[in-house]
Amino acid sequence: METARRLPRLSFGSGGIEQGSRPLPEEVAVALSFNGSTQAVMMATPADLTDFAYGFALTEGIATPDQIDSVEIVPAGDGIDVQVWLTDDAEKRLAARRRTMAGPVGCGLCGIDSIEQAMRPVAHVAPSPLRMTPAQVMRAVASLIDRQPLHDQTRAAHCAAFWTPEGLVAAREDVGRHNALDKLVGHVIRAGYPQGAVVLTSRVSIDMVQKVCALGAPILIAVSAPTAHAVDLAEEAGLTLIALARPDRFEVFTHSDRVTETAHVR
Amino acid sequence: METARRLPRLSFGSGGIEQGSRPLPEEVAVALSFNGSTQAVMMATPADLTDFAYGFALTEGIATPDQIDSVEIVPAGDGIDVQVWLTDDAEKRLAARRRTMAGPVGCGLCGIDSIEQAMRPVAHVAPSPLRMTPAQVMRAVASLIDRQPLHDQTRAAHCAAFWTPEGLVAAREDVGRHNALDKLVGHVIRAGYPQGAVVLTSRVSIDMVQKVCALGAPILIAVSAPTAHAVDLAEEAGLTLIALARPDRFEVFTHSDRVTETAHVR
Repeated sequence: METARRLPRLSFGSGGIEQGSRPLPEEVAVALSFNGSTQAVMMATPADLTDFAYGFALTEGIATPDQIDSVEIVPAGDGIDVQVWLTDDAEKRLAARRRTMAGPVGCGLCGIDSIEQAMRPVAHVAPSPLRMTPAQVMRAVASLIDRQPLHDQTRAAHCAAFWTPEGLVAAREDVGRHNALDKLVGHVIRAGYPQGAVVLTSRVSIDMVQKVCALGAPILIAVSAPTAHAVDLAEEAGLTLIALARPDRFEVFTHSDRVTETAHVR
Repeated sequence: METARRLPRLSFGSGGIEQGSRPLPEEVAVALSFNGSTQAVMMATPADLTDFAYGFALTEGIATPDQIDSVEIVPAGDGIDVQVWLTDDAEKRLAARRRTMAGPVGCGLCGIDSIEQAMRPVAHVAPSPLRMTPAQVMRAVASLIDRQPLHDQTRAAHCAAFWTPEGLVAAREDVGRHNALDKLVGHVIRAGYPQGAVVLTSRVSIDMVQKVCALGAPILIAVSAPTAHAVDLAEEAGLTLIALARPDRFEVFTHSDRVTETAHVR
């Protein structure tokens, strides 16, 4: 399925009115089903859906990669059903989780039906030798610009990328910022990269911090601003949160010891 | 509850490293409960929560303003429970709706557990005499800049505003773009403004079109880009979709007949 489509439009400006067209990102209803039951339906860019399944399963605490037997991408009416088949062990955990999740829930919190669950404690980042120099942080942000073909085309996609001391090694785009991050996480755990930092074009709310902590990356760099609560959570989780990052400047909100002039990864 | 909080940070740039602080937007788990049952939990800016309740109830098809008896804002642990009490009639409809919504669902689609429901047909915009001149569209966008105190402070909030031929008559901000729109819709239906246009700082996905159509506004103006699917839906619903709107230019994707040099509202 294509990720963008050119649509007609009238443009108004100092040059008067012009007929023309503009490429816009596609947005498709994607259901994520685990062992035959739909867990969530999200509007997403129809690309990298196997990565999406692996990443969503990890960041939402449903299954680790070794607990996934297979992923099938099945066209379903107006949308796409991503069918994830789990090992027996993971299926039992999921069934137990489902029993605790009765009734309607929703909106970015994927099966969480109470405030307590929304504010769930986050996985603490394991001790890590990963460090970045200020120059590496700024170069990572500058390199993002080359990794966003859908955004270049449409000006309307979020990007999540993965940095290792080699540079940006992977990037994923989506009309939704959570989806872009889940797709990146899925790709990173499937490809087995060494430890690195997550680089986001989007703003950082607490669910983005929760997802990065689930991946276990010790550094999160974002072009946009964090919420106050995201900073609290990053502090608590031991995550280095860098935001308002541009090719020539950035701000570090938590655990700034990982940004140092003598960065190296053993 | 405050909507922003100043947090310490280290800034790196051409001037070297500086200690300082930055105001960041608060983000709180807000549960929306109808007659005692939680319908959704969202991370939101803790302001205008009664508007939020009215707007969410309308745009998600739960209740119209006359079906709402009362709204209570109740602190609940780390979050806020917004308790909406419905008239008997609305309660019956909600109970019927809940019976059709078994199992986990989520992520921006509020109680919708299938692709079919995500792609639900949208309310068609009723015939309307509302028209805007190109100059009015550009002035509406230019005026947005004066209506965003939280964004001015934090650079991290979305804004939804309401335009009538008098100019921008109301605006609401939130860390989430759906929440900002729901808060605006709630305010507009409670205040009883004449017909007008919705003006958004954010991008336009299909759920934003669905919400604007639920309000019944015939024109939607957005600073950012729409998705292709949002354009399809706006076309189908009879909504005038203007996007990539700046103080000096804009693009019209659907029903451009409402943008005319001889605009007036009878």
